[in-house]
Amino acid sequence: MKITVPTLLLDKEKCQRNIRMMVEKARRNNLRLRPHFKTHQSAQVGEWFRQEGVEAITVSSLRMARYFANHGWTDIMVAIPVNVLELETINDLASRVRLHLIVVNEEVVPILQQGLHHKVAVWLKIDTGYHRTGIPATDYETTDNTLQKIAASRKLEFQGFMAHDGHTYKQTDAEAIRAIHKTTVELLNQLRERYKGQFPTIELSIGDTPSCSTLETIVGVDEIRPGNFVFYDLTQQHIGSNNYNQIAVCMACPVIAKHPERNEIIIHGGSVHFSKDVLPQPDGSNLFGRVVELAENGWSDPVEGINLVSLSQEHGIVKATPEQFANYTIGDIIYILPVHSCLTADSMKSYLTLDGKRLEHLSGLPESFV
Amino acid sequence: MKITVPTLLLDKEKCQRNIRMMVEKARRNNLRLRPHFKTHQSAQVGEWFRQEGVEAITVSSLRMARYFANHGWTDIMVAIPVNVLELETINDLASRVRLHLIVVNEEVVPILQQGLHHKVAVWLKIDTGYHRTGIPATDYETTDNTLQKIAASRKLEFQGFMAHDGHTYKQTDAEAIRAIHKTTVELLNQLRERYKGQFPTIELSIGDTPSCSTLETIVGVDEIRPGNFVFYDLTQQHIGSNNYNQIAVCMACPVIAKHPERNEIIIHGGSVHFSKDVLPQPDGSNLFGRVVELAENGWSDPVEGINLVSLSQEHGIVKATPEQFANYTIGDIIYILPVHSCLTADSMKSYLTLDGKRLEHLSGLPESFV
Repeated sequence: MKITVPTLLLDKEKCQRNIRMMVEKARRNNLRLRPHFKTHQSAQVGEWFRQEGVEAITVSSLRMARYFANHGWTDIMVAIPVNVLELETINDLASRVRLHLIVVNEEVVPILQQGLHHKVAVWLKIDTGYHRTGIPATDYETTDNTLQKIAASRKLEFQGFMAHDGHTYKQTDAEAIRAIHKTTVELLNQLRERYKGQFPTIELSIGDTPSCSTLETIVGVDEIRPGNFVFYDLTQQHIGSNNYNQIAVCMACPVIAKHPERNEIIIHGGSVHFSKDVLPQPDGSNLFGRVVELAENGWSDPVEGINLVSLSQEHGIVKATPEQFANYTIGDIIYILPVHSCLTADSMKSYLTLDGKRLEHLSGLPESFV
Repeated sequence: MKITVPTLLLDKEKCQRNIRMMVEKARRNNLRLRPHFKTHQSAQVGEWFRQEGVEAITVSSLRMARYFANHGWTDIMVAIPVNVLELETINDLASRVRLHLIVVNEEVVPILQQGLHHKVAVWLKIDTGYHRTGIPATDYETTDNTLQKIAASRKLEFQGFMAHDGHTYKQTDAEAIRAIHKTTVELLNQLRERYKGQFPTIELSIGDTPSCSTLETIVGVDEIRPGNFVFYDLTQQHIGSNNYNQIAVCMACPVIAKHPERNEIIIHGGSVHFSKDVLPQPDGSNLFGRVVELAENGWSDPVEGINLVSLSQEHGIVKATPEQFANYTIGDIIYILPVHSCLTADSMKSYLTLDGKRLEHLSGLPESFV
């Protein structure tokens, strides 16, 4: 395993342990695990989920849905408000998989009804407090109107209510995460109560990694859709979702210059590799990654006194103590845990496992391959 | 030109005008223009430079150098401290093009001397105030030692001193940009004076888009290496490098949801499309893009009262006035000027010209193609 350029390492063992942990938690809580595959976007990592009995998945674009459908997945939720411009792709997918679409605005229902050639499952996305998108949880007028339109459609099968608690990503307190989660479950159950007469099989689906990681007991919903847990990262560690030793991806970057006058190491590894996502520090500085050391069977926890503190397009600046600075020579590889594994994986476009296998990422495949 | 998914539009006419403007400025100032191709990373856009007589180029990785060498470019500077782990690629390139490498630390010189099979041009990178990397301009001991090692090497041909004034990107005042530029030119000329006895043909090369855009007269150097000017963007407009009507790339994103209660439009277009680069606003809010309107022959200047204000992985939130909000319907395309065109192009992986042609971007090509 000779690394010469910026490379994203994947520790298969840690990753499979993360998968098993969430599979078992879902099983204990009698929930369907519909993992979000946008984090890894890899057919091979997907197989590791299949080996644990996972059958239903979540994706964030129709292109991603097509990719995983081509790899044998047959129960796919596209967890973004449906893009009515992609009816051709939707029809292709709906002809061969159980496709779940997300509706937020009632005006899309007649467009779908008119354009679809096959039945699809439809979920209403409910805004339970994140305020990115979704029907506000107590906006009954919109929900009534949208559900009546769906009920009248022969192509749309109403499946239930789904929410994404993206606001848990701003928390670092387990109590705050629990409070957000409980509020969401309560709001979704109120909706189920309201509509169960007309739709007796309504399901409830939630999805954020912080809630799914920090809560041992999850009740009142039917399905969870966490994604990031497959790799975790420094952001999730900061939130409290994982320990450092659960982070399953690590950047490997060549040392290309050293600045002894300020104990800074320049790496080939910039924003086109890590992404520009940042973990602001209490002292106002920026953290783009933490340095670990490679051992026989993986990497260590982060080392104190050496951090990735700045990124331009292809350069990164690692700031170190004099002791740490002395450990690195030009031509060495430096190993760095990423702040946001989803975006780093999307930027890197492939993985190298610790036993030297290349795994693909959808973003590394040309358009025509998918 | 039916757009159904996030797409990066390229206005060929604006782009070619930007190219001609810089070619003419270099010619008037008797400078070699060695444009940085990391912004576009496209063989086809490269051809537009060739048509204007450009023969020398800059890139930021050896992979990028190989890509453009494969497209007939024969004079290539890799403007990042040389990665000694990539000697194989360096030797391949040095056998077929005039390859310019960057040295910052003296310890890389013997590694190159030992590993190279062909002659290469070598530049010392000088830190004239940006403090990312480079030999501090008045650190004569390091410069002396490094140059003596280079002089003793038969493989390394010392070409001159180069600098990148990345700190101009933090300015919005033409006087400040001019002051940074003049300081850099002065420091580089002091170095040329010091070493011209031993190296009579020393060249000086500088490179930032703000200086090269805002200064009409550039004297005291031999070469300029701006990159971003080929497309420009909102960041460069903010700095004062360009007008809005010079921005040559524009994102086209489907409208997938609307929130009348807060005049927010949800688009398919997130951080994996725009990158996470941001232009912080005076009121503390974040700006990720500005909305324009598509006309017959291109797009308008930004419209007031409607901006891209938030990005997650695949979703973007556009905040509008009630009047602007009313102009968009689900299934429309919304057109958005990017904050940082280099990173947006790298994320998008290809271009669609206004006359419907697909142009490639290196990041959209599989590893084996390059």
